Amino acid sequence: MGNIEKNLLEETAAWVDEERAKTDRVQKPWDVWIDAELGLRNHWYPAALSRQIEEGGFKAITLLGENILLTRQDGKLYALEDRCPHRGVRFSARPLCYTKETLTCWYHTFTFNLDDGNLRTILNEPESPMIGKVQIKSYPLEELKGVVFAFVGDISPPPVGHDVAPGFLDDDAVVYSAEPYVIDANWRLACENGYDPGHQFIHNWSPFSIKNEIPMSFGWVSNKESVLRTTTYFDSDDGPKGFTRKAAETNIVQEAVIPMNDGSLVEVKLPAAEGKSREELNEIAQYAHSCEVGLWMPCMLKVDPWPADPAIHFESYVPRDSTSHTYFQFGVLKTNDKAEADEWMNRRAHEEWEIPTVEDFTIDDAFARKELQKFYSEEDGWKRERLYRPDIELTMWRKFVTKHARGVQTTDHTKGFFSRKDRE
Amino acid sequence: MGNIEKNLLEETAAWVDEERAKTDRVQKPWDVWIDAELGLRNHWYPAALSRQIEEGGFKAITLLGENILLTRQDGKLYALEDRCPHRGVRFSARPLCYTKETLTCWYHTFTFNLDDGNLRTILNEPESPMIGKVQIKSYPLEELKGVVFAFVGDISPPPVGHDVAPGFLDDDAVVYSAEPYVIDANWRLACENGYDPGHQFIHNWSPFSIKNEIPMSFGWVSNKESVLRTTTYFDSDDGPKGFTRKAAETNIVQEAVIPMNDGSLVEVKLPAAEGKSREELNEIAQYAHSCEVGLWMPCMLKVDPWPADPAIHFESYVPRDSTSHTYFQFGVLKTNDKAEADEWMNRRAHEEWEIPTVEDFTIDDAFARKELQKFYSEEDGWKRERLYRPDIELTMWRKFVTKHARGVQTTDHTKGFFSRKDRE
Amino acid sequence: MGNIEKNLLEETAAWVDEERAKTDRVQKPWDVWIDAELGLRNHWYPAALSRQIEEGGFKAITLLGENILLTRQDGKLYALEDRCPHRGVRFSARPLCYTKETLTCWYHTFTFNLDDGNLRTILNEPESPMIGKVQIKSYPLEELKGVVFAFVGDISPPPVGHDVAPGFLDDDAVVYSAEPYVIDANWRLACENGYDPGHQFIHNWSPFSIKNEIPMSFGWVSNKESVLRTTTYFDSDDGPKGFTRKAAETNIVQEAVIPMNDGSLVEVKLPAAEGKSREELNEIAQYAHSCEVGLWMPCMLKVDPWPADPAIHFESYVPRDSTSHTYFQFGVLKTNDKAEADEWMNRRAHEEWEIPTVEDFTIDDAFARKELQKFYSEEDGWKRERLYRPDIELTMWRKFVTKHARGVQTTDHTKGFFSRKDRE
Repeated sequence: MGNIEKNLLEETAAWVDEERAKTDRVQKPWDVWIDAELGLRNHWYPAALSRQIEEGGFKAITLLGENILLTRQDGKLYALEDRCPHRGVRFSARPLCYTKETLTCWYHTFTFNLDDGNLRTILNEPESPMIGKVQIKSYPLEELKGVVFAFVGDISPPPVGHDVAPGFLDDDAVVYSAEPYVIDANWRLACENGYDPGHQFIHNWSPFSIKNEIPMSFGWVSNKESVLRTTTYFDSDDGPKGFTRKAAETNIVQEAVIPMNDGSLVEVKLPAAEGKSREELNEIAQYAHSCEVGLWMPCMLKVDPWPADPAIHFESYVPRDSTSHTYFQFGVLKTNDKAEADEWMNRRAHEEWEIPTVEDFTIDDAFARKELQKFYSEEDGWKRERLYRPDIELTMWRKFVTKHARGVQTTDHTKGFFSRKDRE
Repeated sequence: MGNIEKNLLEETAAWVDEERAKTDRVQKPWDVWIDAELGLRNHWYPAALSRQIEEGGFKAITLLGENILLTRQDGKLYALEDRCPHRGVRFSARPLCYTKETLTCWYHTFTFNLDDGNLRTILNEPESPMIGKVQIKSYPLEELKGVVFAFVGDISPPPVGHDVAPGFLDDDAVVYSAEPYVIDANWRLACENGYDPGHQFIHNWSPFSIKNEIPMSFGWVSNKESVLRTTTYFDSDDGPKGFTRKAAETNIVQEAVIPMNDGSLVEVKLPAAEGKSREELNEIAQYAHSCEVGLWMPCMLKVDPWPADPAIHFESYVPRDSTSHTYFQFGVLKTNDKAEADEWMNRRAHEEWEIPTVEDFTIDDAFARKELQKFYSEEDGWKRERLYRPDIELTMWRKFVTKHARGVQTTDHTKGFFSRKDRE
Repeated sequence: MGNIEKNLLEETAAWVDEERAKTDRVQKPWDVWIDAELGLRNHWYPAALSRQIEEGGFKAITLLGENILLTRQDGKLYALEDRCPHRGVRFSARPLCYTKETLTCWYHTFTFNLDDGNLRTILNEPESPMIGKVQIKSYPLEELKGVVFAFVGDISPPPVGHDVAPGFLDDDAVVYSAEPYVIDANWRLACENGYDPGHQFIHNWSPFSIKNEIPMSFGWVSNKESVLRTTTYFDSDDGPKGFTRKAAETNIVQEAVIPMNDGSLVEVKLPAAEGKSREELNEIAQYAHSCEVGLWMPCMLKVDPWPADPAIHFESYVPRDSTSHTYFQFGVLKTNDKAEADEWMNRRAHEEWEIPTVEDFTIDDAFARKELQKFYSEEDGWKRERLYRPDIELTMWRKFVTKHARGVQTTDHTKGFFSRKDRE
């Protein structure tokens, strides 16, 4: 890894507040991030949960703007472009698999291979010269830890492990999945909110903090020195690419004052901090932040542990279209003990991770992401944002992604690509 | 008629699958059809049912993107542009007819002739120099068989019979009308779905087929020879222009197999075909398809008989705006017997035609039309569609309409045209 | 004042019906009016009612397309741009005032002065170099007569009294405010409908007219002579600018006929006029129209008295965005008697003004404004409208505003302007 951190820091530091005055006149060094409204192409993404597709069942999803039909036949999962090349209808409107190898269009009986999308036959025109020449897009899939990962791209897929945060696919990782849901905000805003060191202020109002009387901080403030001290970057070609930061080692702000016009200072109290001494607050802070936070390409956050040892929290912000993403959340326990694993899946994960996290904490992140959407999508936010010093980690991420992304999704991709072998 | 069929066939055959590879580089020979998103101008259309406009009553409709107010005064029907030239409000918001000859705007008392749309007076300004000089558009109407036909165009209207399928206006035709409804799909997709020889596959899931255990086919497959053998084209200047095809004489596909990877063949069974011998199936097919199907300009389908003798089915796909059409359906009995006619209208049409057709069959066509809409309106479908051999009848229709249409509706037409005599 | 009326008349008379034939070829002399879709910039507007913002409370509004947060702290009202310059979220999503002098963003603790919008501190980064250099827009406010007036513009604000109809701010004016509501129509259409001499025809169907058997007229018809006789224009730099007209002195049309094709004349009867003699009708008309009607820049109408002495009616059509305005209505009594004032506010205004006006009369104006919207916003109405003689007062108003407006609001203004002192 060597000097990644220092290089990134130098390349992006100039873009935060100190020298922000020049930004309008210069090309920003994170153009791929700004272009990646629909997601990064040629990456793996969580597409669905295994339990959402039973044997013989179907699930229509939208991934990076592409409409995809998932189905499970004879235990095997398939993902095909959800649009018949003949006249464009969606197979998912009335999905038909007459065999375990084929998908038939409900409109004119065009019948495709589940595995490669080739037109195998047309029931009412079995001698058609189109057979074997027309193809819909099929998507590489991996089903791991109860999650269906799909590869959206054109290149030969790298190992799925390169696009998942470390640890998630480990043999001893027991993965409990919450029900995914759609949030009306671009996926990049979700990534940034998740890793953003300053955003923690919003969680002072989360039910988790109120119920447990755990005041969150006013935010973390990373200056260049603390970024170098607390953050590690991973850009090996043999594994996932991303960042990690030890939260407790960053500058967690527990106290704040507002200077008044008359020269006095008003101390600001957070809701759950009332009646607590400074020592108690610091103790809580150290406890609450004794975790490592990591953001991994293309869109996965890891918080270890969270909300408390031994639970590890993972979440993915999967691009759906330009204005929404699907929010996946996973509570993971590391164990090789079968009985412990079962108890995690059957009871403990719900109690120790899902209630405090999914129900009582990340709903505020969903709220924040939605609030960002209007500015960035309608009001030229990527140009007009006015970053401040702690945002340096966001600009480093933007730069990092700009360098390491395997591609950018475009609207042309979403319109589908009908492989026409007869024209080759 | 002579060689219409052969010429059409030659001109359009090249555009289906065999030579489809060239289509991107050449202008398609059905450009009028592609341009006619808002309908064909200078044609007659079903605008409403007679029973929808009582004496003194009003009905606001949208036809080819034009907002029109219908009213019946002293038994006579009128159709006027539903927009006051003064300040653009719709008369239909609060329609006022103070006399049987005039329509008065609720806003500033501009009062127009019902028959020709000329400004007759302004109640609060009877000396206005605008009187007699300002005009709104009026639409020629014909009320026949309980249907109000309106002519949308600029030329002197041809007989309404030229724009209606043969037989509908006959003296002995007893016309029962179902309640029209709006479908969110372009009118051209409705025309194509209705006549499409391959679309019948969808009706295997129609309540009509399930209830009566009548399996539909996998579709009809017309090759060039069968098209010539089974189809007749009408392009006389003295009558309606359109096609007819004897369904039972086309290649109705009752059996289908899917070849498996291991070389075996899987026979596909249709829902209502379970437990029936091939002979039974063929017998049912012949019965179910002993009808003639015709498509007539601008937008009327006729199926004779349907669902069973003596009922004749007619339906019209009337352009409303670029993304919707109004669906009219008619069950017709031919008789000169007054008592029989009455019974048809009072009981039999409902039982023998409306329930099996409107309630239990064409709902699936409505479903299919809506599914086509996204691809054709948002995803460049007219260029990207990948036609196959049985679609040859659709391309022949597109070419036929391109040749015989009296005009194409544009958005400029929908904004209205205020005749300003003072400027002439 | 001198010759304002005559000049306006000469400049705009050519634009109504007599010579309307030329309008397409010439620049209309009211281009500012046509451009002012989002409102007139650099004017005062009613923004809210005092009672809508309690101590410590907040109210988010949209004014001329700008999102504004109102709050009251220590009794003082503030109005700030409702968008954090950092990452664009709206403060109003979770408004926080930790002190009576500051507003803190719920996302990253950016804390702004309530009075001038300067960034006072950032709770988690109190040493940030951005402090004191970043500013959001703050809006001058005046709270008078229970109404919060806000100034939207860039110049030093003139006295609020210059943008309010005469009398409203007088010491002896007791102002009762109805609940404001949003109407889906551009604010200019509301101004024009309110003052339009011909629009009164619509009120023949208002519950007020029906309940009280007070037929309204067919409209007023102003020709050049009556406009000069009945209208007064005010364009002094020391006060509000606007028009007034004595309704009873205009040509109120109480009778109307429609000429029939056979040469006869049909007399038109208004709903509430049935069974009344002409003398009775004229008497009612004189009574109903014994008021002075005035339209004042930027958007306030005054009718004195209305619906009956001693009530004075004021209403404002406040631009919200390009397709909607907020409708404020005020019932005013002039008195220096404290007891009488209290009774007005507690009982009489509701009975004598609010029920007959807000509930039973102006709902028809709201209806008319909405009906105008489609034509003017989607169908090129400002060019295609076909004005008639009584509209001369509208064109005079358009010309008057074009001459006296202090500015025009643009979409660039609505995107906010972040004062960046560090760049100055």
